[in-house]
Formats: sequence, C-alpha cells, structure tokens
Amino acid sequence: MKSISLLGASGSIGTQTLHVIRSHPDEFRLVAMSIGRNIKVARAIIEEFRPELVAVADATAYAILRSEYNGKVKIVYGEEGLIEAATHPKATIVVNAVVGSVGLVPTLKAIEARKTIALANKETLVTAGHIVTEAAKNYNVALLPVDSEHSAIFQCLQGEQRKNVEKIILTASGGSFRDRTREQLRNVTVEEALRHPNWSMGAKITIDSATMMNKGLEVIEAHWLFHLPYEQIDVLLHRESIIHSLVQFHDSSIIAQLGTPDMRVPIQYALTYPDRLKLVHAKKLNLAEIGALHFQSVDFDRYRCLQFAYEAGKTGGSLPTVLNAANEEAVAAFLSGRIAFLTIEDLIERALERHNVIKQPTLEEIREVDRETRRYIQSLLI
Amino acid sequence: MKSISLLGASGSIGTQTLHVIRSHPDEFRLVAMSIGRNIKVARAIIEEFRPELVAVADATAYAILRSEYNGKVKIVYGEEGLIEAATHPKATIVVNAVVGSVGLVPTLKAIEARKTIALANKETLVTAGHIVTEAAKNYNVALLPVDSEHSAIFQCLQGEQRKNVEKIILTASGGSFRDRTREQLRNVTVEEALRHPNWSMGAKITIDSATMMNKGLEVIEAHWLFHLPYEQIDVLLHRESIIHSLVQFHDSSIIAQLGTPDMRVPIQYALTYPDRLKLVHAKKLNLAEIGALHFQSVDFDRYRCLQFAYEAGKTGGSLPTVLNAANEEAVAAFLSGRIAFLTIEDLIERALERHNVIKQPTLEEIREVDRETRRYIQSLLI
Repeated sequence: MKSISLLGASGSIGTQTLHVIRSHPDEFRLVAMSIGRNIKVARAIIEEFRPELVAVADATAYAILRSEYNGKVKIVYGEEGLIEAATHPKATIVVNAVVGSVGLVPTLKAIEARKTIALANKETLVTAGHIVTEAAKNYNVALLPVDSEHSAIFQCLQGEQRKNVEKIILTASGGSFRDRTREQLRNVTVEEALRHPNWSMGAKITIDSATMMNKGLEVIEAHWLFHLPYEQIDVLLHRESIIHSLVQFHDSSIIAQLGTPDMRVPIQYALTYPDRLKLVHAKKLNLAEIGALHFQSVDFDRYRCLQFAYEAGKTGGSLPTVLNAANEEAVAAFLSGRIAFLTIEDLIERALERHNVIKQPTLEEIREVDRETRRYIQSLLI
Repeated sequence: MKSISLLGASGSIGTQTLHVIRSHPDEFRLVAMSIGRNIKVARAIIEEFRPELVAVADATAYAILRSEYNGKVKIVYGEEGLIEAATHPKATIVVNAVVGSVGLVPTLKAIEARKTIALANKETLVTAGHIVTEAAKNYNVALLPVDSEHSAIFQCLQGEQRKNVEKIILTASGGSFRDRTREQLRNVTVEEALRHPNWSMGAKITIDSATMMNKGLEVIEAHWLFHLPYEQIDVLLHRESIIHSLVQFHDSSIIAQLGTPDMRVPIQYALTYPDRLKLVHAKKLNLAEIGALHFQSVDFDRYRCLQFAYEAGKTGGSLPTVLNAANEEAVAAFLSGRIAFLTIEDLIERALERHNVIKQPTLEEIREVDRETRRYIQSLLI
C-alpha cells in the first residue's frame, strides 16, 4: 500500500490521479491533498477518499472547509499549508500536479522529507532544475516524471545505460493551430486556441501547446530529468500523439513508448514504478485502426516559443525563470482577452531580452526574478 | 573481449556478423566458424579473421581447404565439424546463422557446453522449442534473438517484468507481393518473389516473407523465446519495416523498437547485450524524412501460411517440424522453378493434414518427422 499526497487535486492531472487511486484501493491511499478554491470538488474528494489533511489555497474556501470539517479532517491554508501537505508524515509519494511556479517550494520540502516525487509541475524543473536535481541527489530521492513525454522517455530508458543514449526525441502534436501559417494566427480566438486536437487538458497548457511553449518547457525539464545537454534533445512533430517520445541509442536502435492519449498511463506508471498494474477502462491502442502515424520536422520560425525555450535553456541560470514567468503572464492575458495570440511571443521575447542573467540563482533570486518578470509583463499590458 | 563462434559465416547474417566483429576489434574475436561450400569466401574470412577452426559442410570444399590450410587452421567436416565449431572451447558466444534444420543439434551441443547462444536459425526453436528452451534453462544459458523482430521484443522487455506483458506484436512488411490479390499470385515468377521491398536477405527467407511463412515461423519462435501463449502474440502489417516489433503491457503502455532496416543492429545487440556499442556506418532513422508509418491488420485468408503456422504452433508437438520441413522443400521447389508460388501453400497444407502428431517428440523423432515430411513433399513433386 502506497500513501499518496496529491498537490493540485482538482485540476486535470489531479482528477486523473484520483481515478488511478480509486481503481486500485488495495495499492493506493490518499493521505493528503491540496486544492485551490473549488469547495464542491474538495468536499467530494474528502467524502470519497477521507484524506487526513487538506491544504486550501483560497482564504474563503479555506474558512468554509475548515468550519465544515472541524475535528474530522485537518484543513490548512496557503503556501505553508501546501508544504504541510507535501511533507505529510504518512505520505511516501507526493504527486505534484499544481500549475505554475507555486509548485517549487513544496517540491523541495518534500524532497527534504525524503518523499518520492511524481512530478507533473513543469515549473519546478524549468525554474530551479539545478536546485531540485541537486536536492534529489543529496537526499537520494527519485524524481518520477508524470508528463506523457517524459514518462515515455523514462519508460524507454528502463534496463538501459545512460551512457549509450545518443539523443532523446520529444514528440509534439503541434497544438490547435498546427495547420495554420503564422499569418493565419493573427486573429485567432481564445476559443479556437483551446481546442486541442488530441488531449483534453487545462486551459494554460492547451495554449502552451498552441504556441509550443509547452514543448519548450518540456525540453528544459528533460534536460534536468535525464541529465542531457540540449544538443541531445530533439523535438519531432507527430500529429496523432500516439508515439509519446523516443530514445535513440548509439547503436542506432530506437526505443519508443506508444499509447492512446490517456494521462492515466503516465500517472499510474509513476505510482507503480518500476512495476505496472492493469489500467481500468483504458482504450487499448490499435495501430491497424489508426492506419498511419505522421512525422514532420519542427519549424523554429513557425514556433518561436520553442526557439526561445532552447535559447533560455542553453543560457540557463535565471533565464528559464523569465521564460516561464513571462509565458504565464502572457498566456493569462491572452486567455482573458487582453492580448492577441501572437503577442504572447512578443511579450516573452521582450522579457528575455532585457534580463540580466544570474548564473546560479538561489531560490530567493528565482522567486524575485519570477515576481519582477511578472511585474514587467503587467506593465506592458496597461 | 568476447570470443565468437559463427555458424553460417558466408550467408547474409554471417556476413553482417563479420562486419560487426570487424568494426569492434577490441571487443570481438572470431575463434571458430562454419561455411557451406563457398571456398572463395572461406579463404577471405580465414585470411582476415584468423579463426582457429573452420567447419565445412561440403566434402569437396572441405578437402580443398584442408589441404590449403594444413597445419595453420583446423578444418573440420560435416555435422560433426559443425558441432566442433559450436562447442569450441574458446568461444563464449555462438552465433547460429545457418539456414534450415541443420542448425538444431549444434545449438543443443553449444548449450550443453554452456555457450551464450545468439540465435538467427529459426528452425532450432520452431522444430524443437521445448527441447532447446528446457536445455537452456537447465544449463542456465541465455538464448539471445538475432531476428530483427525478436531482438525488438527482447529490447522492449529490458527492465520490465514478464508478468506485466499483455501481448507482443510482431510487425510484418507483407513481403514482395503485399499489394497483390491472391488471384494475382497465380503466375508470379521467382524473380518477382525475390524482390523484397525493405530487406536484402537470402533467397529462402525472402520467399518466406512473400508467403508470410517467415512471420509464422517467427510467431512460433516468439512463443518459445518469450514463454507466451499464442493468444498473446499478434502480427501487424507495417509496410515500412521501421517499427521492428512492439510489446503491450497491462497498463496499456506500449514499448516499441524502431530503426532503419539494418540487420547489424540486432546482431550487434546480441553480441553486446546488455550493453550497446556504437554501430559504425549506420544510417540513423529520420522519421521526419520518412513522413509516415502505415499499419494494417493481417488477412489470414490472404496469407494462409501464417494461419498454418498459428495452427501448427497451437497444436505443437511434431506439427511445427512438419510445417517447417514441408515449407523448406516447397520453397526449394518453387525457387528451382518446379512449382507455382501458390502451390507452396498447398503442399504445406497437405503435409500438415496427413501428419499424426507426436506430443513431446524426442530429437530423434523430430529428425525422423523432418526426413519423412521432406520425402512426402518430394513424392508429390514427381
């Protein structure tokens, strides 16, 4: 029986993690969780899974839930609450599925508490990869990827020696606008941007797929997770999202991981690793039914955000933090209708260009760069 | 440094094995080999690799080589000679790349001599899978596949637990006649049959690809190599021969092995396993360049030999020996222009139907069934 702390229980990854826990009651138990502000969802999860501790981000939601579950469930608040959930003494695995850079400190605290980390929060590695991987090494803690691409790479590497890896190839669907030229992107709507062809995900990550910043963040994440230089990380356009990623070895053999787009597979793999379990109600991949898989090389001029990410990753230091913070603010501005789709790229580019890179930023410097970048993007929006 | 005995050095697999040995002189050394009757090739290999022992199948070739290398290289003859090569005291790995059922006894003798077996000879497992796998288990000897499909499965299984395998999927190119109907197969020529779309291989295996008996034999081989019932072994048509095979796990995750069609990859993997080495002069796979991979389910009415193989495999006992012997004789008859392409299937079917299955045949019974089946097919050809 593995005891799980789930950070970000009401989001897309959180919901699917609960599905995995629900379908294997003899294997998994939810001991702690966090939510943002959705009281209704929180109540439902508490009733069903009976966690011992619930961290709530929103003050009002916190007050309501606290009064409702007084004496029955420990309700805690804010970042401190999130850390309490991440370090819950009974938890052996922490699934970090919160969105945004708020996921960073709880991850570090969980590592210090020697929890196994199932990481769905990209920003943790993007902004503080050097600190997080160093901590994981020092505390001898496993960082298990939950993203479908990184899980694919991780699965392909089982039984292999890292020295034999020539490169890893992350596949990218191309997002909602993959069949449009840059010219055709000028007047796209939020609604159109949110229609991802293959995956049903949260709003922010769906926009990140359309700009391909999502793949860029994944490239940086992969750099840290698999200890590979950027020259050994490629991106390949693959419309169908069936091959989730590939590893090429020195002998020119390639190992790939495939499946129907179903996030429960990588989530469950992180929870069962190195074992596997039956996945309940899964649609099995039928390649004959699909008929064909397509591949295309990536045009870095078409997807400028991917280019920015490679550059920020290669420069390193505090620049990926700028990339990430500028992107979060720009995407939020697009989603709220304040800017056009292509302006997302322009804002990120401006933030990257003005930044003076700090080479080995501390956690405090990362947080300050994050705040400062957000202020800068906001100042451009007025 | 690994010392290799190569059975079948002048064939297609043999030649490519020599290429691998040649490109890693610090890793591999050829200590023993066998050839059929090609004196010229034998001389060239002897001069280049300086093996200690050479087994020759043909009596005339044996006499000539023996007189030429008198005192310098030990030249031995026939099946006994082949066994001497397979059990050479300095060899740690025996690459069995002979064609046909002559590969069986040397494999067993090599197992008893505790050599690691790199197996390219299909008939060994097809006709005596129960004896060979039992011997390998008893002598604690590894049976490493050299076929591209089985090597793919084997690579995909690294780091995985067998209990988690739902099924394995062998890919099939469909062979030279994949775009023809059965009606269009009536008058095909030997020359047309020998034009394999993806792989350059020997004549017998190329015809086996066209009838898909090759895939049928591979299904039976996979059954023994991976200890899986036939219900867990699927075949998938995949024109491009880029995905060499796949493994589906219970969690619906699929691991696949890919690459350009290059037999040196599986050969070298068997020699370096569990490590990998750089493959010299290899063409790396570029999926973007290829553009698309295609998949189709297999029509068992179109490919009757595949159906025969599943049935023979499921029935087991001596029936796969009949399948294999009848096929060898029928293919030889087709190659020499004595029968039409579709008659290959008819002959095999007749041989299977008349056979009284021996449930756990001994080696002697297998050899007798093999001989008897060949006599029967020959009697039909008069």
